[in-house]
This record gives sequence, C-alpha cells and structure tokens, in this order.
Amino acid sequence: MTMPTEDPLLDLDVPQPALLFDLDGTLVDSVYQHVTAWQEALAEVGIPLSVWRIHRRIGMSGGLFLHALQRETGVHLDDERLERVKQAHAEAYLRRADTVVPLPGARELLHHLYGRKVPFAIATSGARLTAQTAIDMFDLADDVPVVTRDLVERAKPDPHLFLAAAHLLGVRPQHCFVVGDSVWDLLAAQRAGALGIGLLSGGYGREELERAGAYRVYADPEEMLSRLEEVGVRP
Amino acid sequence: MTMPTEDPLLDLDVPQPALLFDLDGTLVDSVYQHVTAWQEALAEVGIPLSVWRIHRRIGMSGGLFLHALQRETGVHLDDERLERVKQAHAEAYLRRADTVVPLPGARELLHHLYGRKVPFAIATSGARLTAQTAIDMFDLADDVPVVTRDLVERAKPDPHLFLAAAHLLGVRPQHCFVVGDSVWDLLAAQRAGALGIGLLSGGYGREELERAGAYRVYADPEEMLSRLEEVGVRP
Repeated sequence: MTMPTEDPLLDLDVPQPALLFDLDGTLVDSVYQHVTAWQEALAEVGIPLSVWRIHRRIGMSGGLFLHALQRETGVHLDDERLERVKQAHAEAYLRRADTVVPLPGARELLHHLYGRKVPFAIATSGARLTAQTAIDMFDLADDVPVVTRDLVERAKPDPHLFLAAAHLLGVRPQHCFVVGDSVWDLLAAQRAGALGIGLLSGGYGREELERAGAYRVYADPEEMLSRLEEVGVRP
Repeated sequence: MTMPTEDPLLDLDVPQPALLFDLDGTLVDSVYQHVTAWQEALAEVGIPLSVWRIHRRIGMSGGLFLHALQRETGVHLDDERLERVKQAHAEAYLRRADTVVPLPGARELLHHLYGRKVPFAIATSGARLTAQTAIDMFDLADDVPVVTRDLVERAKPDPHLFLAAAHLLGVRPQHCFVVGDSVWDLLAAQRAGALGIGLLSGGYGREELERAGAYRVYADPEEMLSRLEEVGVRP
C-alpha cells in the first residue's frame, strides 16, 4: 500500500517527542518530606489532618491544595494565615531537604536524553525556593528549561506549567509527554493536550494513574530509561 | 415464598459479624512514621531505598518485608544485620511516636462497637513494643483481644494473626470482617476465610484495595462508622 502523500489532511511529520518532567516524586524522592512538612505547617495553624489526605493532594498547586483542605475540614484560613502556612511548609521542607535524594535512574535518564538531543524540561508546582535544591542535584546544562510555580499564573491540575515548558522548548504540546507521579500531573497533561506517563515513585497506585489517563506507567525513572522506545525515543 | 427450613444444607444461623482490626494506618495515623523509620534503619546498614517501595511493603511482617527488600535490592543481610535493622526501626519509630495520633473516628468506632457488644479485636503485624503506645490511646477495656506479631508464628499476608484474633473472640473466621489499610491485610483476610474492608487512611489507593479483594472500601474509621449497616452492624 502506498500512502496518499498528496492528501493535505494527512500529516506524517511527527517529530521526536519532547518530555516534560514533574520534579517531586518523579525525579527526586521528596514526596514524603513534603507530606510531613505540610502536616507540620497545618498543625501550627490548628488544622490536624490525616497524612494520607495530604499525600493525595501533593503535586497540585499549593493554593488549590489549601483551598481543598479548607473545604474538606470546614476551617477557614484568611490570607495572612494562608501565607503563614505556605511559609511554614517551605521552612519545614527545607529542614528535611538534606534527606532528599534523586530517584533511581533519574540522573541517568536526564543525561541520556540530553546526550541524544531529546528535548526535555522540568515543570514543577513547587516554588523556586524549595525546588532549586532538588534540581541542583542533577547538574543540568543551562539550556534545560525549568518552570516553577512562581513563573505561571496557575499550577497543576491547570495546564499552564506544561504549556509554558513546551513553549520554552519550542515544541507543540501534542508532541510532548508529561512525566509525573501524581494524578494532578496526568490531569494537567490532558488539559495541555499532551500524553501522560505515570511513575509509581511518588507513592500513588498504578490504577489511580491509569484512571487519570496515563499512556504508560513505570516504577521509577530507572524503569522508564530501560523502556524509552515505548515513548518514541529510539535506542 | 417459604424457606425450606427442614433442609439440613441450609444454615440461616448467621451471627452478628465480628471485626478484626489492623492497627497502623487503620486505627492510628502511623504509616508515614513507620515508612521513614524503616528508611532510616535501612540506610544505617547501607541499603538506600526509595520511600514509595517501603510504603508498598508496610503492613506485611517485618521479616517478610526484609526478605522482599533483599530480593529487590540484591543485598544480603545476615542474621545479625537483620536483627540490627529491626532494632533500628523500632528505635527510629519510637522517636517519632509522639507525632502519632488516632485516625478520625477510630476511638468513636471502637467504643461504639463495644457499647453494642459487637465483638472485635486488634491484630497487628507490629511488635508489642511499638504497638502498645498506639493501642493505649484508645482506653480499651481489658477484654478486647490484642494480637501482636510476637504472639504468632507468621504475620500478614499469612492468616495467623487474624485466625488467632477470631479464636480469642470465639468466632469462626467466616463470620469476621478484617478491617485494614493495606493489600496485605486483605490478602491475609482471604487466606483466613474472612471478608475484608479496606480503609484509604494508610495511603494506598482504592483500586489496589479493591483488587486485593476488599468487600467495601471506606476513607477512614469515621466513614466506616457512618456506614456500619453495610457490614451487618445494625443501627
């Protein structure tokens, strides 16, 4: 069979996909530190919350997270206390930051992609302040785009972080894979018109990630690196 | 329609179900403390392990847990180092024990059952040493059976803990519900011939618990208390 290459509706010009990585739980093993830091910060303003409920919200924007918590707990936080909780979380997280390490295979995966000129970026709901110590572990080249919460109007599950990252790479979102550990990453990927890859390394279950639309689910960056051909990166 | 009550194969004598409760993640919010305590203990003997992998093993017997970790990491631990890891975990957990609180509704649920003479017991893979501080929070009557790891030959997912608990209640396992937060509880429930109720409060996903055979899944003890009629406890 020959393809009707004259057909103006047939576009076979599919570029090498680009990869947009979440940070916490996807590249670095920091989810449990964030979870316990949020718990400590919330307890300071009188909101005792079960740890699993915080875990299930991790990865969404801090603002949305606090909004959802207020709805679930019935406690209202004014702007001043909201700001205090965010600040207390950042401080509690930074106290734990020395226990945060890269996830297995994360450094190798990023350097493998860079060596093969596969475009990739990091897009995190975290603030630059807390994200920087994690990103520094990877010794990335200066031309790898990093989009943090501070740089966009809305964080996950809104698509802004991933749209901005794709824009900085000069790639259309439909030619990107979002790689993340939480359902919020995968929902934001759908909103951005990208495909999503789920990693179990943030502590969510495989089925949750599949139900949120994951195209593939891997254990961690190490397993993803060993199966890159499944996402269109040629060996 | 009248039932053929003369039929010797028809046994309509179904008693009020008894409830066999797991402890960590089911009645107390202690899973994340156990997870980080295991991580700290394993790092001390030179096994760096991603936190989510530990979380996914929590709730099974400490011995099986360490066996699985050795297989997954390829690191062999001799008996002396195994003992050292278990001891280090217990010490690291007890250092965190003051941050452990009952899960919402746990105290109310247990006292509600006791007041209605619904038989129940606690059966935990934890050692008496680490479990006792948690159990003490509930001010249970002395006649509530508590089975800890030390009292049986094998822990979850083997059925021994729940079989022993049912025996102490004088109830046959098929007339018991096992209530737990992990897949190991639900697998052990199946092995024991009991039905399983999953709680999300240990951080596992709903789908994982359903796939492990949960008859029902609730958010936490508070939600279970509000729906007790679904498990045969009459209002």
